[in-house]
Amino acid sequence: MVNFGVVGYGYWGPNLVRNLFEVPETQVVAVSDMNTDRLKLVKSRYPSVEVTTDFQEMLRNPRIDAIAIATPVFTHYDLALQALQHGKHVVVEKPMTSTTEQALRLIDEAAQRNLVLMVDHTFVYTGAVRKIKEIANSGKLGDILYYDSTRINLGLFQRDVDVIWDLAVHDLAIMDYILPATPCAIAATGINHVFGGTENLAYITMFFEENIIAHVNVNWLSPVKVRRTLLGGSKQMIVYDDMEPSEKVKVYDKGITVNSTPDSLYKALVGYRSGDMFAPQLDVCEALKVEIQHFVDCIKTGSEPITGGQAGLRVVRILESASLSMKQRGKLINLGVSELIRGAA
Amino acid sequence: MVNFGVVGYGYWGPNLVRNLFEVPETQVVAVSDMNTDRLKLVKSRYPSVEVTTDFQEMLRNPRIDAIAIATPVFTHYDLALQALQHGKHVVVEKPMTSTTEQALRLIDEAAQRNLVLMVDHTFVYTGAVRKIKEIANSGKLGDILYYDSTRINLGLFQRDVDVIWDLAVHDLAIMDYILPATPCAIAATGINHVFGGTENLAYITMFFEENIIAHVNVNWLSPVKVRRTLLGGSKQMIVYDDMEPSEKVKVYDKGITVNSTPDSLYKALVGYRSGDMFAPQLDVCEALKVEIQHFVDCIKTGSEPITGGQAGLRVVRILESASLSMKQRGKLINLGVSELIRGAA
Amino acid sequence: MVNFGVVGYGYWGPNLVRNLFEVPETQVVAVSDMNTDRLKLVKSRYPSVEVTTDFQEMLRNPRIDAIAIATPVFTHYDLALQALQHGKHVVVEKPMTSTTEQALRLIDEAAQRNLVLMVDHTFVYTGAVRKIKEIANSGKLGDILYYDSTRINLGLFQRDVDVIWDLAVHDLAIMDYILPATPCAIAATGINHVFGGTENLAYITMFFEENIIAHVNVNWLSPVKVRRTLLGGSKQMIVYDDMEPSEKVKVYDKGITVNSTPDSLYKALVGYRSGDMFAPQLDVCEALKVEIQHFVDCIKTGSEPITGGQAGLRVVRILESASLSMKQRGKLINLGVSELIRGAA
Amino acid sequence: MVNFGVVGYGYWGPNLVRNLFEVPETQVVAVSDMNTDRLKLVKSRYPSVEVTTDFQEMLRNPRIDAIAIATPVFTHYDLALQALQHGKHVVVEKPMTSTTEQALRLIDEAAQRNLVLMVDHTFVYTGAVRKIKEIANSGKLGDILYYDSTRINLGLFQRDVDVIWDLAVHDLAIMDYILPATPCAIAATGINHVFGGTENLAYITMFFEENIIAHVNVNWLSPVKVRRTLLGGSKQMIVYDDMEPSEKVKVYDKGITVNSTPDSLYKALVGYRSGDMFAPQLDVCEALKVEIQHFVDCIKTGSEPITGGQAGLRVVRILESASLSMKQRGKLINLGVSELIRGAA
Repeated sequence: MVNFGVVGYGYWGPNLVRNLFEVPETQVVAVSDMNTDRLKLVKSRYPSVEVTTDFQEMLRNPRIDAIAIATPVFTHYDLALQALQHGKHVVVEKPMTSTTEQALRLIDEAAQRNLVLMVDHTFVYTGAVRKIKEIANSGKLGDILYYDSTRINLGLFQRDVDVIWDLAVHDLAIMDYILPATPCAIAATGINHVFGGTENLAYITMFFEENIIAHVNVNWLSPVKVRRTLLGGSKQMIVYDDMEPSEKVKVYDKGITVNSTPDSLYKALVGYRSGDMFAPQLDVCEALKVEIQHFVDCIKTGSEPITGGQAGLRVVRILESASLSMKQRGKLINLGVSELIRGAA
Repeated sequence: MVNFGVVGYGYWGPNLVRNLFEVPETQVVAVSDMNTDRLKLVKSRYPSVEVTTDFQEMLRNPRIDAIAIATPVFTHYDLALQALQHGKHVVVEKPMTSTTEQALRLIDEAAQRNLVLMVDHTFVYTGAVRKIKEIANSGKLGDILYYDSTRINLGLFQRDVDVIWDLAVHDLAIMDYILPATPCAIAATGINHVFGGTENLAYITMFFEENIIAHVNVNWLSPVKVRRTLLGGSKQMIVYDDMEPSEKVKVYDKGITVNSTPDSLYKALVGYRSGDMFAPQLDVCEALKVEIQHFVDCIKTGSEPITGGQAGLRVVRILESASLSMKQRGKLINLGVSELIRGAA
Repeated sequence: MVNFGVVGYGYWGPNLVRNLFEVPETQVVAVSDMNTDRLKLVKSRYPSVEVTTDFQEMLRNPRIDAIAIATPVFTHYDLALQALQHGKHVVVEKPMTSTTEQALRLIDEAAQRNLVLMVDHTFVYTGAVRKIKEIANSGKLGDILYYDSTRINLGLFQRDVDVIWDLAVHDLAIMDYILPATPCAIAATGINHVFGGTENLAYITMFFEENIIAHVNVNWLSPVKVRRTLLGGSKQMIVYDDMEPSEKVKVYDKGITVNSTPDSLYKALVGYRSGDMFAPQLDVCEALKVEIQHFVDCIKTGSEPITGGQAGLRVVRILESASLSMKQRGKLINLGVSELIRGAA
Repeated sequence: MVNFGVVGYGYWGPNLVRNLFEVPETQVVAVSDMNTDRLKLVKSRYPSVEVTTDFQEMLRNPRIDAIAIATPVFTHYDLALQALQHGKHVVVEKPMTSTTEQALRLIDEAAQRNLVLMVDHTFVYTGAVRKIKEIANSGKLGDILYYDSTRINLGLFQRDVDVIWDLAVHDLAIMDYILPATPCAIAATGINHVFGGTENLAYITMFFEENIIAHVNVNWLSPVKVRRTLLGGSKQMIVYDDMEPSEKVKVYDKGITVNSTPDSLYKALVGYRSGDMFAPQLDVCEALKVEIQHFVDCIKTGSEPITGGQAGLRVVRILESASLSMKQRGKLINLGVSELIRGAA
């Protein structure tokens, strides 16, 4: 049994606590939040859980094995570092930290203490993304040509992060999991429509050493909710539409064919090929439950989580570069040391 | 009655000829094409129409008042210039020319000869886009905040132009018609997946002096066809989905509200507002027919077409800059003289 | 504060208990179920709630003011009657009873004891159905011409009821709420595909004294889930699609026009009229919460619930006739005394 | 080369003529229509085609091998009979005739003269329906359990036929082609909302000797256009949605499983099974072209068309019974001699 302390009971914390109660091998010992109304809510729902406004209390509690962090991004580093320093395993909401330096520091701390550090890249644990990974790994798509995602809705304007850190982070996490390579350069554009706010709409292009391109369109100011990702391969292509109640993942047997001998102005150099479409059945288990189980398994076996500190770092690094590029209207930012960071992965 | 010569009977030419037969005030006298098979097809469908492989023959024909050009882009300038020099009014398929210099030259030629020069920005004449223009003009949307368009499908790879010149041109033409301002800078990214080809996938961001942003996502290599444009306003927002059989234009009474006194970490600075949705009935008359009627009206009254030479020039100018930026991975290109070009428009 | 005992913690019971905890004026004192595993689940979620396998215990508990019944249909009558006889207000899952005789008996019992008897016609309390009722009442639709509903999915085959009692009951409850009249005759067809089972697919037509028709298509064996209802009026028409994440209710300004002087074989007697479409914003409050609040209000004021015993009776009566007609391959069943039943409603 | 005379150039005639020009082995010699404006239209489009208001003229023309009939239903019998009596092959728009007696008479006449009699059940020749037939024949669906179709839109109210004869005829033709059995009894309900008109909304249930049921929902007064057919099998199920621009046919690996030992009230006797979905690529060749080619092949080989007189008769017979049942509010009509009619098919 892994005993948890949960810090932050705002938007995501309740999902964490609910799922920690559902996984047989986990238990919630305490919840901390600076807002006492939120703590009262915890108490009414889970009378057996201890509540506190003092995070330190949880750190000192020897019954607690792991800390789950669901607080605003700018607090992640400090809370996670303290938790690790008190010998607790840590799972932290995405993005892992506000800077790459912070991410590297957490990775070191966890490594030195043999603690599990995991970032809550939730989408990686969905049935849809796991199925896409399986298909991509099987080679059926051929060479990956592009990743193109639209993630827009009328959303809460965040105060401490821009829309890239809030929404694009999901795509970066998914890309980190399913693409065979990491970006080598990035160019992002965006706009802030509210005085005193952060960018609420952004477009990010990522370049790769390979002939791949990735693009993410994120927007807090769209009248409609869209969650659609295209993964283009030379043999097959995937459309992943998370708004579909079923058939979220569709695999198209479509592609292009190169005509060796085009013979007129009206004939194209490249034709297209069209075939069947296939929508595989997906595991419908809640992603967060799968993820918590994986965290427990990593604690037990000492293995690195799929979305461990290194994955968290890679994503934060791209987020940082994207925001930087966006401030300069799409200036190209090289991500030259990516191979070093990825290491032996 | 306006008598037409049509040059080019490939993909678009048949639509032109068919609609020229439908409009009561127009008539097709001759069609020219370098491919005799295409001319045979004309003859079988319209026995009364003269056919020729020699474009000059049409220019010399005194019965012909106007030339409609539906040939590859690189030929537009030369054909249009000759037509104007022979005293013919000209309607040319989009994009108007391959360069801004060519566009300026055609505008001059037409002006000096008091001839009508029109570019076939077809979408401008659709019921959907005309309705959007009407709503935007009414002020109901409030301040325009962004234009965001996705125009992707498994499409023919063009040989002489990249995907921007083939697909994004539609959005540039629509933007030119409905937006209250012209872009002042542009950053585009893209990729070419086929050896020896042009870019088949591109992303274009356009910046404005006003706090507006525009983005266009075009792709010849998508397994699904998407034609969706968002027009965000401070009061209302429009979703224009051209793939919808009906209800192509939806107006959402949605937007944001700024909270003057956010009082906690969990409260956002900016909230959102949600209301009814409204899908106005659209005129279903074929766009090309509306456009041809407008061309005839301009010939009769001597007025400048909605999509006249200046509109054609503005679009070509952005296309040029977009391709230039794309070759340099999103390098920002300033479009500083835009006001000069727009002139008294 | 109204104190509840809940009987049945299978599929629907958990929703009841959760919402009873959410409404400030209600409280759950005890839950009974014959399955001790379900009771353990209650205890783990709500440690303060008493659990029992003995329904009588709840009846004898003087702290309990009202009983909520969420058990199989064949048990409704017996449990509700006992609850009323012990002076408890009753809210019972739909359909209210297995027969009209039972329904009449419960109505009498509640009336004699001045207790509130309510049936859980949940859909009546959704934002969508309440909005449709509001629009229908406003007269904007003109005369109601038809109600046509499709309610199909791959669903659990029930053991004690056929698909009409399981799915069509929702439409009958909605019709009872929004239509200006009650059916006067019914013809139903259906089929049972499983040996020893009940009908899993059925089609019900209902006739009215007025020139209205209603039809309901229900199916436990559909590969796709459809929840779509058309409400045709002489002036406007509504499409209510419960599977839409937003825009569940669309009001179409469409209808027919009668041509007084058709002048040829190719001209129709009746033409059609097409206009704008409008999707009103809907209240998104959970229906069950709205319903429980209404139950509490009825207890406090002594007024008849919108979905009181009479509504429950009218629905059961149609269900009975539908099953009867279905057994005879669509034999017409007259519902002649409907006016008597509806009474002063 | 088969030379055609086409009678009727209203709604469907132009499609016939256009396709007769497209098929290399067919040619249109003459078109007759009582409306001279329509004939002028023919002449402007196809100057080489003879036009006449006198159908007899076409009958007497020895150059004409076959007559295509695209006139109102009540004229089909008379025109087809005369054509056969003049030795012409006949293809007649659906439904073949107004009565079964007429259908039998035409079949006899064609048989005696060794002429091809075909009814234009267009949907049978679509890529979608041909693919469904192929899948059903392969046995992959298992036993067919039901056919359920919705075919509604805001449509032209016909003057000489009710909505069953106008819309349900398509489903009856499709069912006749793909189902392994013919209905043995029918019950239909419907309503007429316009004074002096025919039923504009109808529901038809068909029963079979086998444990199959079929249902068709047709409506001229729907604000939305729906063309969706479910074909339920014991192993797989098909959804055929003709409004989908692509993926019109989806095959679901879904079904039910019978639990031999249900062990509690909460466990169902029957569970369900869910798997992948598959959307086969469809032939996109225009149905009418495929059909005309088939007609030509039958003339050349002397074989019976897939949609020959017998198929036309079977459909007319069900239409007749459906209208009869509808007039009596769903009275069951037995179709007892179906086996005799189907003959050795």
